[in-house]
Amino acid sequence: DFLNALDEVQPAFGAAKEELEQVVENGIIHYSSVIDELLRSGKLFVDQVRTSTRTPLVSILLHGPPSSGKTALAATIAQASQFPFMKLLSPDSMVGFSESQKVAAISKTFADSYKSPLSVIVVDSLERLLDFTPIGPRFSNAVLQTLLVLCSRRPPKGRRLLVIATSSLRPVLTDLGLSEAFDSELRVPPVSSLRAIDVVLRELELFPTDDERRRAIAMLQQAGLGGEEDEAGSARLSIGIKKLLSTIEMARQEPEAVAERLTSALMGLGM
Amino acid sequence: DFLNALDEVQPAFGAAKEELEQVVENGIIHYSSVIDELLRSGKLFVDQVRTSTRTPLVSILLHGPPSSGKTALAATIAQASQFPFMKLLSPDSMVGFSESQKVAAISKTFADSYKSPLSVIVVDSLERLLDFTPIGPRFSNAVLQTLLVLCSRRPPKGRRLLVIATSSLRPVLTDLGLSEAFDSELRVPPVSSLRAIDVVLRELELFPTDDERRRAIAMLQQAGLGGEEDEAGSARLSIGIKKLLSTIEMARQEPEAVAERLTSALMGLGM
Amino acid sequence: DFLNALDEVQPAFGAAKEELEQVVENGIIHYSSVIDELLRSGKLFVDQVRTSTRTPLVSILLHGPPSSGKTALAATIAQASQFPFMKLLSPDSMVGFSESQKVAAISKTFADSYKSPLSVIVVDSLERLLDFTPIGPRFSNAVLQTLLVLCSRRPPKGRRLLVIATSSLRPVLTDLGLSEAFDSELRVPPVSSLRAIDVVLRELELFPTDDERRRAIAMLQQAGLGGEEDEAGSARLSIGIKKLLSTIEMARQEPEAVAERLTSALMGLGM
Amino acid sequence: DFLNALDEVQPAFGAAKEELEQVVENGIIHYSSVIDELLRSGKLFVDQVRTSTRTPLVSILLHGPPSSGKTALAATIAQASQFPFMKLLSPDSMVGFSESQKVAAISKTFADSYKSPLSVIVVDSLERLLDFTPIGPRFSNAVLQTLLVLCSRRPPKGRRLLVIATSSLRPVLTDLGLSEAFDSELRVPPVSSLRAIDVVLRELELFPTDDERRRAIAMLQQAGLGGEEDEAGSARLSIGIKKLLSTIEMARQEPEAVAERLTSALMGLGM
Amino acid sequence: DFLNALDEVQPAFGAAKEELEQVVENGIIHYSSVIDELLRSGKLFVDQVRTSTRTPLVSILLHGPPSSGKTALAATIAQASQFPFMKLLSPDSMVGFSESQKVAAISKTFADSYKSPLSVIVVDSLERLLDFTPIGPRFSNAVLQTLLVLCSRRPPKGRRLLVIATSSLRPVLTDLGLSEAFDSELRVPPVSSLRAIDVVLRELELFPTDDERRRAIAMLQQAGLGGEEDEAGSARLSIGIKKLLSTIEMARQEPEAVAERLTSALMGLGM
Amino acid sequence: DFLNALDEVQPAFGAAKEELEQVVENGIIHYSSVIDELLRSGKLFVDQVRTSTRTPLVSILLHGPPSSGKTALAATIAQASQFPFMKLLSPDSMVGFSESQKVAAISKTFADSYKSPLSVIVVDSLERLLDFTPIGPRFSNAVLQTLLVLCSRRPPKGRRLLVIATSSLRPVLTDLGLSEAFDSELRVPPVSSLRAIDVVLRELELFPTDDERRRAIAMLQQAGLGGEEDEAGSARLSIGIKKLLSTIEMARQEPEAVAERLTSALMGLGM
Ligand SMILES: Nc1ncnc2c1ncn2[C@@H]1O[C@H](COP(=O)(O)OP(=O)(O)OP(=O)(O)O)[C@@H](O)[C@H]1O
Ligand SMILES: Nc1ncnc2c1ncn2[C@@H]1O[C@H](COP(=O)(O)OP(=O)(O)OP(=O)(O)O)[C@@H](O)[C@H]1O
Ligand SMILES: Nc1ncnc2c1ncn2[C@@H]1O[C@H](COP(=O)(O)OP(=O)(O)OP(=O)(O)O)[C@@H](O)[C@H]1O
Ligand SMILES: Nc1ncnc2c1ncn2[C@@H]1O[C@H](COP(=O)(O)OP(=O)(O)OP(=O)(O)O)[C@@H](O)[C@H]1O
Ligand SMILES: Nc1ncnc2c1ncn2[C@@H]1O[C@H](COP(=O)(O)OP(=O)(O)OP(=O)(O)O)[C@@H](O)[C@H]1O
Ligand SMILES: Nc1ncnc2c1ncn2[C@@H]1O[C@H](COP(=O)(O)OP(=O)(O)OP(=O)(O)O)[C@@H](O)[C@H]1O
Ligand SMILES: [Mg+2]
Ligand SMILES: [Mg+2]
Ligand SMILES: [Mg+2]
Ligand SMILES: [Mg+2]
Ligand SMILES: [Mg+2]
Ligand SMILES: [Mg+2]
Repeated sequence: DFLNALDEVQPAFGAAKEELEQVVENGIIHYSSVIDELLRSGKLFVDQVRTSTRTPLVSILLHGPPSSGKTALAATIAQASQFPFMKLLSPDSMVGFSESQKVAAISKTFADSYKSPLSVIVVDSLERLLDFTPIGPRFSNAVLQTLLVLCSRRPPKGRRLLVIATSSLRPVLTDLGLSEAFDSELRVPPVSSLRAIDVVLRELELFPTDDERRRAIAMLQQAGLGGEEDEAGSARLSIGIKKLLSTIEMARQEPEAVAERLTSALMGLGM
Repeated sequence: DFLNALDEVQPAFGAAKEELEQVVENGIIHYSSVIDELLRSGKLFVDQVRTSTRTPLVSILLHGPPSSGKTALAATIAQASQFPFMKLLSPDSMVGFSESQKVAAISKTFADSYKSPLSVIVVDSLERLLDFTPIGPRFSNAVLQTLLVLCSRRPPKGRRLLVIATSSLRPVLTDLGLSEAFDSELRVPPVSSLRAIDVVLRELELFPTDDERRRAIAMLQQAGLGGEEDEAGSARLSIGIKKLLSTIEMARQEPEAVAERLTSALMGLGM
Repeated sequence: DFLNALDEVQPAFGAAKEELEQVVENGIIHYSSVIDELLRSGKLFVDQVRTSTRTPLVSILLHGPPSSGKTALAATIAQASQFPFMKLLSPDSMVGFSESQKVAAISKTFADSYKSPLSVIVVDSLERLLDFTPIGPRFSNAVLQTLLVLCSRRPPKGRRLLVIATSSLRPVLTDLGLSEAFDSELRVPPVSSLRAIDVVLRELELFPTDDERRRAIAMLQQAGLGGEEDEAGSARLSIGIKKLLSTIEMARQEPEAVAERLTSALMGLGM
Repeated sequence: DFLNALDEVQPAFGAAKEELEQVVENGIIHYSSVIDELLRSGKLFVDQVRTSTRTPLVSILLHGPPSSGKTALAATIAQASQFPFMKLLSPDSMVGFSESQKVAAISKTFADSYKSPLSVIVVDSLERLLDFTPIGPRFSNAVLQTLLVLCSRRPPKGRRLLVIATSSLRPVLTDLGLSEAFDSELRVPPVSSLRAIDVVLRELELFPTDDERRRAIAMLQQAGLGGEEDEAGSARLSIGIKKLLSTIEMARQEPEAVAERLTSALMGLGM
Repeated sequence: DFLNALDEVQPAFGAAKEELEQVVENGIIHYSSVIDELLRSGKLFVDQVRTSTRTPLVSILLHGPPSSGKTALAATIAQASQFPFMKLLSPDSMVGFSESQKVAAISKTFADSYKSPLSVIVVDSLERLLDFTPIGPRFSNAVLQTLLVLCSRRPPKGRRLLVIATSSLRPVLTDLGLSEAFDSELRVPPVSSLRAIDVVLRELELFPTDDERRRAIAMLQQAGLGGEEDEAGSARLSIGIKKLLSTIEMARQEPEAVAERLTSALMGLGM
Repeated sequence: DFLNALDEVQPAFGAAKEELEQVVENGIIHYSSVIDELLRSGKLFVDQVRTSTRTPLVSILLHGPPSSGKTALAATIAQASQFPFMKLLSPDSMVGFSESQKVAAISKTFADSYKSPLSVIVVDSLERLLDFTPIGPRFSNAVLQTLLVLCSRRPPKGRRLLVIATSSLRPVLTDLGLSEAFDSELRVPPVSSLRAIDVVLRELELFPTDDERRRAIAMLQQAGLGGEEDEAGSARLSIGIKKLLSTIEMARQEPEAVAERLTSALMGLGM
């Protein structure tokens, strides 16, 4: 069943593309200009791989707090490349893998990519691929060494590869010597302004009317979450987009107290 | 016999339901309003899973001191959902399992749940599933990584899953990076008021008459256990409901000195 | 031969009873009222298991200094229960067992007990079952996790079980999180009064006449071992009953200097 | 497939030579006199191996910051020897190897070299061959011991061997006792003067005209990167040649702002 | 060959006796009254095992500095018992044994002893049986646990056993919890007086005449080694009997300077 | 292939002798009287083994800084014995051996030696045989325990054995408890006087004329390397003979600047 496991992680092309789509299930909400800049930077790296003969390998790192949207953005950039080989290397499909099975699965994906003239690999959640735990710390050195080599080994002649990795433990990567393996880094920030929240609320249609939505935003401001000016005394608003979406869905369960529920949930994060 | 072991942990539906019933063997005594609030919150999460299309996965954590009733409450919430797939993942049925057998058993339960449109899994006693010991500390990193991924991996399209985990070592979960895997947390408190004790004593009929019960409560108050007002000098009453039930049964063995035995046992906890 | 090993640890009923008898080879000497109280407490727990429907599992811990008689007392309490299933789980019969063999042997004993309506298991010397060493410390986490679960897992419906564990490393059990697994604890003290020594000497007939015995006791008092009043300057007498029996037998080898040998041996313990 | 793996690492002669060429894909740019001195020193060691009968083994270490060109220089020196046996031992061809597979691959290369009268082996990136991580630190002691012996074991009678190792973790080698295994050390510095940058920019034809290139250099000087005089206040320019090449290719993607992009990238390194 | 190994450690009776003789190859020199006392104490323990019904197991520990004669004395006491079962458990016959082979060999020896009514086992050099190293420290916990149980487990009914263990790392045994496993301890001191040296020199006939021997002793005294009165300024003489014998043999190689060589060797120990 | 490996390490007699010769490839240069004293001491130990019946085992340790000539001297002493069994146990022939293969190879050599009436074994580079690394430190405890026993176990009746071990990590041996296993120690010093350098230069004919050699020595003295009188300000000259030979060969490559190259190389050691 190890072979089965491997087959599973090396799906046909169509499947790979579908996998990339699935992790962006809730779409990309353009709640801030940062999102557009991130996508544009991504496009530049795609272009570099496509055109420069001197850099057949470009590897970048998307890092940011948990649930800030790293995976969705990496997948979006990868998909937009329309490279003939696109693949998502995710811990989700390696549950229960032994160290050597992980190494084999990762190596195989890179080996497969070398068969295509243009490839992009999303290496999602480095810390989970590494089985990292802060206690110890413990991690798989075998997987680490594999990633260290593969993320900086140039592909064979005539092949080009873009590696997009994600992580929410940026400082750990430095400790592990892994951050040096990337040519560039892009930071994915959390949602931290009421204006951004407003955009998201509208998009998700949590409130039936614009008025109600504005009242809710006012309530959040009242609660001291209007941290855009970062005044002393106002709570710093900071929530990952994925968590924000989930919080909104919970609030939706109590139609009689949506705004209250939302406020207390967003306040609670600061505790 | 590994296969046998696995068969054991994936019982038919009827058996799963029975398992959930068995851990609430002594019923739920409504000794405080907190119990009702906990059950109501549980119901809201069940509803969210049932209705919201944006959050096909909701995972919550029930934590509290040892023997506070976490397992019984989690099982009660799960059972009340009446979801077609209900399962108790418990260390009790994994005695002697190797690391990889545990990982396999846990993975299988999640994989099975993905076959049902609506599922609920109770992941009981995270610290025991992790083989956690404070000395070291030691724990199974393989099980930890498996839980980290499975408790936040969204189910396949069209499937929805509620995960209810329990733990009496809340701070350890943060150290392990495991607390971030949950969307919400609910705290199960210990019994800490004489009024609650009174309810339980009545329910269990430890004393033949109301008078005798009231005299016992008075004796406890006399002993300084009337900690509801939390005055200086009064011992803080704090005992898990499971331990309270057991203490009451021990006291019952000496019919001639029930109240004395009860008092000294409850006092002893503070030592 | 692993299977043979297992067969060895699961003897037929008669053999189990004999095992329990064997560890009390030198009988129980009632050298102090504490011994009677310990045996009476043991009986109360036996009664609770027999009668209370709410507590089908009761687990207690006998702890005290090395050679204080823990194993003999646990076996005596167990035997007195006359429960249809009685078993001694002892490191003596697990020499050379691997971790997993120990886990299997322990699990099997509990599984066997679940077939009897009323059972008692003596889990002797937790530190040896755990392969515990203070250097490190090292211990078998697999055995620890097995004991943690088995000592608090309720038996199947209609089955009742009394677990009596012994240990001379009480504080270590707290560090390991193992002390919480027990409902109650009983402390077995060392012999610490000349009156108790006197009882033992008489019982063992070390001296041919009462006079000679009294002279020996006087000599011990002279040596400052009359620590019952715990006056400053008097050495604290403290010796386990098993070590006391052995010391007496050594002294017996030099008939011409029995009292001197005894005195110097008992004094030597304080060094 | 272990055997396959070995076959892979012991290519025929032509392949070995090609491997050495491939790692110098972007050629050697003579941006500073240090480069010429390094290549000349390399030639002297090649001569010593060829001529001295008393030192049939010479082992040297090329060390310097990441991406400073160590691998390319080592390969260039090796290739220039025109020894009948030339081989690149690289972590790139040992991805996923177990400890013992690495040891076997390394041993085999040395054993093979002993069949040729004159041999040169490039042992590339000692830290990766050792699976070294600073956390712990962890590394393969088996590979370390193998390298310790092989880098100082004299070849059989009549055979001569030059070993050229590379590393970007020079201090770690001392901690491991590995630096003593080498007869000499050569340091490969980073690019650290605007004059050197100018040479590289010209060679790579980033700017269409000499004027534009000079303007860019002026802009870098303006930005405080003219660190040749190492004045207080000027940022220390320090970038590996490999990273410099990659930075230039990225800048090339935005034809409208090449100089700005270059400047900010080079400044960013100091952050 | 594991079975062969076991066969090797369980020789027939004659062989066992020969083994015990072999380790006393140079005989016992009665250089001090301590030697006689040690042998007499040994005899008392032999008697206790032979006669007392209450202590079927007696275990003693011979400890002292390296080469002080522990093994020779333990073997001498064992042999003098003339018990039908006599056995030397020595690391010398377990070279290259794995942990489990050691455990098996040790267990087998004890199991064999249980077949004889009266037995004596010499457990030589506990630290070597434990594979103990001070760095770490490291040791075989499996062997330790085996010894902990076997050295205090009473033999089956009707069987009696004397265990004589040796060690030159007495304090380590306490750290390991192993010293508690013994009923008594005997200390084997080093040679520390010129009178004792004189006895040994005479016995070994290092000097052809009494005069020459006396002159050598005088030279040692001159050198400040007459430490019997332990005056300030005089070097503490302290050498194990085995090392003394070896030093004497080395001195014998230079007939022209025997006394000088002896003096400088004995002085050198203090350095 | 494990068997093949073993065959390799147990060559026929002729091969063993050749191995001993090979490690003294550059001969022994008598650059100082210390060298003669070391060889004479070696001869005395050879004689002791040959003649004394009380010490059938003599084990000595040659220690000194890296490349000081330990292996060459140990091999020279061994060869001079002309004992019927002579063997070099060297890490060079154990590359890639597992722990147990090393243990087996070492044990076999000792077992083989027991078949000859007179034997000598050179145990070369204890630290490499132990797979020692200062980080941790890590080492093979199995090999350590094997050496601890074998270097002090007396050979069977009628057999005599000389063990000559070498090490450049003398202090580590004490930490490991390994230094106690040797009867005597001999220190091999580095080359540390200009007079010794002069002898070596002459022997190796680095300079075509005596005049040129004297000028070079004068240059070294000028450079402050005339450290024989150890005056303040003069650099301490200290270089292993093996390194000195290698330095001389490097200098030989630049005929136009031999003396300069030599001076800067010898000075560089102090950096
Ligand atoms: N602007 C946006 N950027 C990223 N994701 C967005 C955005 N707008 C909406 N989303 C949605 O938010 C979710 C982001 O989840 P995602 O898994 O990418 O976060 P993450 O940072 O990878 O989380 P984790 O730290 O758990 O790995 C997705 O469902 C995505 O569809
Ligand atoms: N209000 C209540 N809440 C929970 N349990 C209750 C309540 N009233 C009575 N009980 C009974 O108390 C017991 C609670 O035991 P449970 O095993 O759930 O505690 P726990 O917190 O999981 O203990 P542990 O920390 O050992 O896992 C059950 O037997 C249950 O039937
Ligand atoms: N009052 C008593 N209590 C317990 N044991 C007694 C008593 N009187 C006599 N004995 C005898 O003393 C011995 C006690 O030994 P036991 O093995 O029970 O001690 P222990 O505390 O378990 O020792 P260890 O710490 O080594 O496990 C037994 O032989 C028992 O027959
Ligand atoms: N003077 C030079 N020296 C070395 N490399 C040069 C030089 N000029 C151009 N190059 C090119 O620069 C690149 C150097 O990369 P190389 O892999 O050798 O660096 P490295 O120091 O080994 O990096 P790493 O630390 O990642 O191992 C090669 O592509 C090489 O062709
Ligand atoms: N009085 C004595 N006591 C013990 N051994 C003696 C005595 N006189 C002579 N010998 C001889 O001295 C040697 C003692 O060596 P033995 O191996 O017993 O020492 P040891 O303390 O066990 O050494 P180690 O610490 O290495 O285990 C033996 O050869 C023995 O014959
Ligand atoms: N007086 C001498 N003593 C020892 N070796 C000498 C002497 N004169 C010349 N040599 C030569 O010097 C070299 C010494 O190397 P050897 O391998 O013995 O050193 P080593 O101390 O064992 O080194 P390492 O620390 O690397 O093990 C040999 O080639 C030997 O022939
Ligand atoms: Mg993600
Ligand atoms: Mg529970
Ligand atoms: Mg006991
Ligand atoms: Mg490189
Ligand atoms: Mg000994
Ligand atoms: Mg050497």
